[in-house]
Amino acid sequence: MTFRFEVLHSSKISKARVGRIYTPHGTIDTPNFVAVGTNGTLKSLDSTLVDEIGLQLMFCNTYHLMLQPGTEIVRQAGGLHSFINRKQPLITDSGGFQVFSLAYGSVHDELKSRGVKKNDGCVMKITEEGVLFRSYRDGSKFLLTPESSIRAQKDLGADIIIPLDELPPYHIERETLQKSLARTHRWEKRSLDEHLKNPQNQAMYAVIHGGIDPLFRKESCETLTAHPFDGFAIGGSVGKNRTELREMVAYTRDFLPPEKPNHLLGIGDIPSLNDLVPLGIDTFDSSYPTRAARHGLLLTKQGGVKIDQMVHRSIFQPIEADCLCPTCQRYSISYLHHLFKARELTAFTLATIHNLYFMVKLMERFRLSILEDRI
Amino acid sequence: MTFRFEVLHSSKISKARVGRIYTPHGTIDTPNFVAVGTNGTLKSLDSTLVDEIGLQLMFCNTYHLMLQPGTEIVRQAGGLHSFINRKQPLITDSGGFQVFSLAYGSVHDELKSRGVKKNDGCVMKITEEGVLFRSYRDGSKFLLTPESSIRAQKDLGADIIIPLDELPPYHIERETLQKSLARTHRWEKRSLDEHLKNPQNQAMYAVIHGGIDPLFRKESCETLTAHPFDGFAIGGSVGKNRTELREMVAYTRDFLPPEKPNHLLGIGDIPSLNDLVPLGIDTFDSSYPTRAARHGLLLTKQGGVKIDQMVHRSIFQPIEADCLCPTCQRYSISYLHHLFKARELTAFTLATIHNLYFMVKLMERFRLSILEDRI
Repeated sequence: MTFRFEVLHSSKISKARVGRIYTPHGTIDTPNFVAVGTNGTLKSLDSTLVDEIGLQLMFCNTYHLMLQPGTEIVRQAGGLHSFINRKQPLITDSGGFQVFSLAYGSVHDELKSRGVKKNDGCVMKITEEGVLFRSYRDGSKFLLTPESSIRAQKDLGADIIIPLDELPPYHIERETLQKSLARTHRWEKRSLDEHLKNPQNQAMYAVIHGGIDPLFRKESCETLTAHPFDGFAIGGSVGKNRTELREMVAYTRDFLPPEKPNHLLGIGDIPSLNDLVPLGIDTFDSSYPTRAARHGLLLTKQGGVKIDQMVHRSIFQPIEADCLCPTCQRYSISYLHHLFKARELTAFTLATIHNLYFMVKLMERFRLSILEDRI
Repeated sequence: MTFRFEVLHSSKISKARVGRIYTPHGTIDTPNFVAVGTNGTLKSLDSTLVDEIGLQLMFCNTYHLMLQPGTEIVRQAGGLHSFINRKQPLITDSGGFQVFSLAYGSVHDELKSRGVKKNDGCVMKITEEGVLFRSYRDGSKFLLTPESSIRAQKDLGADIIIPLDELPPYHIERETLQKSLARTHRWEKRSLDEHLKNPQNQAMYAVIHGGIDPLFRKESCETLTAHPFDGFAIGGSVGKNRTELREMVAYTRDFLPPEKPNHLLGIGDIPSLNDLVPLGIDTFDSSYPTRAARHGLLLTKQGGVKIDQMVHRSIFQPIEADCLCPTCQRYSISYLHHLFKARELTAFTLATIHNLYFMVKLMERFRLSILEDRI
């Protein structure tokens, strides 16, 4: 099946919409949550468990897969779907985000360090050609260009791929940001050209940049929507708090073509979903629910449950009485508490299953609310 | 179903035999391998995966469960089967082995340290009443007596339980060993008495001691087989190498009643199985295959495969072509290699599944060979 998007319903009371993305490996109902499986696995889960949860789209990181096992190995294996044994859709990024974020740190790190690079050794040189960096694994040098990123993503063969962009730090001079934005636009165009030489039935989402500057965001939308990208992701620094984020997304969203799917990169915590689904964002990727699971934070409709607290020691009920996830169907809060206290690896698996299933069901509820014009 | 054992076939060329142990939670074909799930989970697997592998008996450690979550919690949960959601048979030990082995270290540690206690702080006092020790978790004091061990094992409710014994170090004066043996026999009798007050449909296996002294082993068999134990486990120091082990087991085995099942405590590596199945040992527990899996050693009929070696980087076949385990059915050597290199938790799960399934199938082959009088 070729990539296609359709809007099934637009809310009467907000910009929220319910849609469906068709890909060669199946459909993705939107709005939806995209789980992050950096190295080609959702941490502590195998693909059978992921299937069981009903997760429609999984995000893998080209940067990590380039360094280990190398995209050539994945190509030889028949592509990422075959390598990791996933039947359903996959999305990969360009590698740029990791190269730059390993250099600058997250916005949060940066807000503390005021833009001091946390690891200068990673990014060695940024030129018009691309970015030269050292592997975090063994220090070997890699040159990541728009063309090499796309060739890597051709090896991986995900259903949706992303052009190379530059990720400028949150704290940046306006003029520097403008130069970075222009280069990002050139890199994205080169990425698209490389992709279109051999589309391989993949779709490409452009990445809208511009930091928190409305004029730049508008310019980025106008520049990138002029090219035949299949969808649009919102990337770059999206604000230092939820208010900035909401305003920036609301503003940017209006310059994106409604007939194409959009994606918000790297954000998918529950408060942000509540804020941003009404703005018409279609997909969100985040490692939040899986990372929270490994830290013993279990998601429920009443909020997060810190499973290692002693109050859970003798509660012989599932995390949520009405949850149909494999964990809740089989195990009690008391057993999960015990596994975390005993530092058993099984704890991570069972908590991750629950949290991802929670996200799947949360997004179902969002879609239902939109269909009923309650969002 | 009440505990019962039957011998289905005795080999014409060795003392090996094929039998069946019936328990309230199902049958165990013998000879068989017993996987160790110390804290009530096979490390990195949930009970569904364990069921899928076909593992008939799982060993949990009373010592660990006493300290976390506490056997009272497990009792409130309806027993260990219910707490961990296992439908099939379970065996628990007395807690004594861990108390003493944490004090003395393994035979291997001891051979290096020549019997110097590695952690004197653990065992505080051994008296006729029992052993006073400090929790490895929080330093709190526990008194483990034959009666308290059995009450703990009543809370856990495993199908097979084990009386409290003293585990003397490998390096010990003959006279000290003799005194320890006599006390172990008194403790086991007290354990049996406590058990028989409230059998709860559980079976109890005595533990034969006597170190590597044939006369003491014989005496231990004669003393303990005089009591109505349901089976007999061989415990204590079983030798510093495979020759000593084989001689001691061969010798001891002849003094055990053939109509009752026997078990070898803590040994289940493949060379030992090859040596000891022909001697008529019925069950073996060992953490070897699960620990090996977490260290990236995958078991095959051609020997162990060190999965992180670079030679496995681009082998797109399963670990064993004819293996029907969930891992081999779904993933290649290349992917497993990648998961280990990327230090992904999923690696442990997939490797553990394969190794346990390998053991299940290995034991099936042993049983078939015995039935055909080839062992």
